[in-house]
Amino acid sequence: MNSAPLGIFDSGVGGLTVVRAVQELLPAENILYLGDTARLPYGSKSPETIRQFADEDVRFLISKGVKAVVVACNTATAHALPSLLEKYQIPILGVIEPGVEAALASPNVQRIGIIATRGTIGSHAYQHALALRKTGLIIHGQATPLLVPLIEENWLDHPATRQILKTYLDPLVEKGIDTLMLACTHYPLLIPVLREILPQDVRLVDSATTCAEHLKRELTRLDLLDTSAREGSLELHLTDLSEEFEALARQFLKKSPGRIQRAILGG
Amino acid sequence: MNSAPLGIFDSGVGGLTVVRAVQELLPAENILYLGDTARLPYGSKSPETIRQFADEDVRFLISKGVKAVVVACNTATAHALPSLLEKYQIPILGVIEPGVEAALASPNVQRIGIIATRGTIGSHAYQHALALRKTGLIIHGQATPLLVPLIEENWLDHPATRQILKTYLDPLVEKGIDTLMLACTHYPLLIPVLREILPQDVRLVDSATTCAEHLKRELTRLDLLDTSAREGSLELHLTDLSEEFEALARQFLKKSPGRIQRAILGG
Repeated sequence: MNSAPLGIFDSGVGGLTVVRAVQELLPAENILYLGDTARLPYGSKSPETIRQFADEDVRFLISKGVKAVVVACNTATAHALPSLLEKYQIPILGVIEPGVEAALASPNVQRIGIIATRGTIGSHAYQHALALRKTGLIIHGQATPLLVPLIEENWLDHPATRQILKTYLDPLVEKGIDTLMLACTHYPLLIPVLREILPQDVRLVDSATTCAEHLKRELTRLDLLDTSAREGSLELHLTDLSEEFEALARQFLKKSPGRIQRAILGG
Repeated sequence: MNSAPLGIFDSGVGGLTVVRAVQELLPAENILYLGDTARLPYGSKSPETIRQFADEDVRFLISKGVKAVVVACNTATAHALPSLLEKYQIPILGVIEPGVEAALASPNVQRIGIIATRGTIGSHAYQHALALRKTGLIIHGQATPLLVPLIEENWLDHPATRQILKTYLDPLVEKGIDTLMLACTHYPLLIPVLREILPQDVRLVDSATTCAEHLKRELTRLDLLDTSAREGSLELHLTDLSEEFEALARQFLKKSPGRIQRAILGG
């Protein structure tokens, strides 16, 4: 039993989809969330810069006394998780392992499409993790860098969004994928339009839910679960505050984010 | 006569459209360019954060010994130029005044549309500068936040780009604009498709060329021109290096950017 907060970070507010899943599965946990909105996006930047930013994010959370860290950002997990695990003693979990587990949970999976930022696709972290666990998979990674801007504009149902999605997805559909991994915390908001565009038998896998389950197992194993009966708190820190980020936070969290604090990273 | 370099900065590589115009008009000038690619974009972030970033950018350029600074970023000009002018002794020029001059150069201008980032539109800097210079203008600002991501993807002629442009521009066309200001350094790359979409009599104004002319006048007035006969150098510094940024730099500059250095800002 440990009632110190969980630290969860992302380049922006997309990681709040993970927060929502954690709150549902582990309602007693106190959560301290950091969104690096001043420097977002991470997905188009270089591995070195992403590692530096992720390191500063983790240091901020550790300075606030968290008991474990969830990297709720696919790009940061892809490029920075190994170096973070090497550097820090505290438990640090990413979103890739849980996503890969979820994708492979169905025994019939054979052809997997992955959509993500350019950074995540370019890291080959998903491709590698999948290939390690199951031989003979056919894996197609597709960088989809316009999706985050479209989602942040809330153009979830705009004809241009459909057209852009078709441009990105048609090559994957032609290759006969049976599973599509939504490897970016923003993408779950596109699930309704994805269901319309994709053939019915393509399975969609997003990592927020499985990440929460993975976290529960890990916290249990390490005896770090908060087992109290009261509802946990949520503290939101963003490196840049604006009305747009607040509105987006509400959308990802599906409720009011409460008071948001401005985080100053140590640099 | 002063052969110290000119400092030019932008949130990314879009400001190289200004560099190109300066090189054409003032070929002897040495130029030191800073692109804050690690923290781009600025256009969606808050005024406070943009002011802090612009301040760090100017301090970097001053530490390199520049004789004057051009803020080749509309969002940074819109939110940070007044505070920069107050704080620093060195001449600092923005892109808004030159753009406004160019827009008002035609005596018949009456209805002006402005497309720009959310930050630039929200600052009302263009609207204010136009209204100060000419009474009776009808001004329509339109935030167009998806254009920079589309240009950075090089989807200059994709059907989705046309659809998004029509969504943004149809309301301006319906209001009968005679002039459209492209108030972001990325947008000149869209001129061919804009010419197809807009009515023929809508005049397009971009600020890169007029910014260079404005700079020439100011350097002459302050006796800071480099009047030597040799061709000036260009030194590129980016806070994040990647192949994508190099490719984009080549596109904006219309030639090889040479060796790019990684800039570490003082913070």
